[in-house]
Amino acid sequence: MYRYKLTIAYDGTSYAGWQIQPRKKTIQGELEAALKRFTGEGIKVYGSGRTDQGVHAAGQVAHVDFTKRITPNEFCRVMNALLSPDIRVLKAVRVSQSFHARKSAAEKEYRYFVWNDDILPPFIRYYRTHVKKSLDTEAMETAASFLVGRKDFAAFTANPKYERETTVRNLFSLRVKRTGHDIVIIARGDGFLYKMVRSIAGFLIRVGEGSVSHEPVRGILRTKKRTSLVPTAPPEGLFLWRVKFGN
Amino acid sequence: MYRYKLTIAYDGTSYAGWQIQPRKKTIQGELEAALKRFTGEGIKVYGSGRTDQGVHAAGQVAHVDFTKRITPNEFCRVMNALLSPDIRVLKAVRVSQSFHARKSAAEKEYRYFVWNDDILPPFIRYYRTHVKKSLDTEAMETAASFLVGRKDFAAFTANPKYERETTVRNLFSLRVKRTGHDIVIIARGDGFLYKMVRSIAGFLIRVGEGSVSHEPVRGILRTKKRTSLVPTAPPEGLFLWRVKFGN
Repeated sequence: MYRYKLTIAYDGTSYAGWQIQPRKKTIQGELEAALKRFTGEGIKVYGSGRTDQGVHAAGQVAHVDFTKRITPNEFCRVMNALLSPDIRVLKAVRVSQSFHARKSAAEKEYRYFVWNDDILPPFIRYYRTHVKKSLDTEAMETAASFLVGRKDFAAFTANPKYERETTVRNLFSLRVKRTGHDIVIIARGDGFLYKMVRSIAGFLIRVGEGSVSHEPVRGILRTKKRTSLVPTAPPEGLFLWRVKFGN
Repeated sequence: MYRYKLTIAYDGTSYAGWQIQPRKKTIQGELEAALKRFTGEGIKVYGSGRTDQGVHAAGQVAHVDFTKRITPNEFCRVMNALLSPDIRVLKAVRVSQSFHARKSAAEKEYRYFVWNDDILPPFIRYYRTHVKKSLDTEAMETAASFLVGRKDFAAFTANPKYERETTVRNLFSLRVKRTGHDIVIIARGDGFLYKMVRSIAGFLIRVGEGSVSHEPVRGILRTKKRTSLVPTAPPEGLFLWRVKFGN
């Protein structure tokens, strides 16, 4: 068997998310269908993790096992010819059998983009969450700083019971940057709970709007219960940006 | 009557161009339908010029006449609420009756974007022409320099007979810039013939690919006949970028 590590970008707009589901258009489903056409075999695609309906990826990582050896260049070329233009295999690399896209992942980076102006330009309308009210990014940064570290993020997930083991995650960094009307929330961590980044983004947007101060952050974390202070921000602003692997 | 100057951005992907046509979805048609819903009146929208099917605009300019006076802010707000998100009224300004979007235009700038790499990222797939073969932008710039000035561009239009008066235009500047995999051709002039920018872009791409040298430029201009050296580049890379008006 030959194992390949794939780096994949996709526009999640017209997909029901990463994970394959019967009768739904999904990224994993499209990749597996392309592999079937490519090789004639039923090859499973292992992603570093799921992304939800409408969420994008600039650098999702997956692995696949092939019975035949092919060059990484040919792999990309053939896959991109078979896939629709909203899914691209950016890179393919031969890796050892010990590599596993989910289990070997050491760090994930998500980016949540907000367009903070009256008018959302047409060309980015599928890739930004539109917030008209001017956001106080300094207040957002202060609130963000309280969330960094190894913590129980049960209050920042859609459904804590969805997690198999623990709701503790290590959030390495959480930054808020503004460039003109563009605001990006950059979250790096060892892993993220279900809808955790969108919950954090939803909370930080409320802080930025001035409807919540950063004060309740510690309380929210302590109670471990989802409150109305933590809405789930919409999917279109979210990108799985990068997955890092250990040596 | 109150005249308003509108600055409009649109994603041309799903439109049959600017100009209103029966049973087709057009930008002018959408704007006039929105104005009808807004005011109850049939108001004509005068654009600075047409854009073809699939061509975008970052700064198209148009004017409209209103019987009632409204604030520019309200104009934008109401129109953007009525229009689909792929058309945005960026700005509205009260102007005098002497202002005319087409007749008063002193300079137009078009930008033609090429993504020059093996893989086209999904997020810009509607806004770039994809050219895999590495382009020689220096050769493109040299060829571009021969096209600048007041010249007869009959060889760079789809149909010279389509022009009512003359095929002479003054091309103020024509630049080619590369930023990583992104190449942009910036054309500024007093006006452009039908498909002139896409013809220039098609020619410059051929020069960049090395399939034509810049040598035949003078000959092409002199013959005033369309040749196979001048293909029409696809619409998705083209943006009407800006329209300037005299004082």
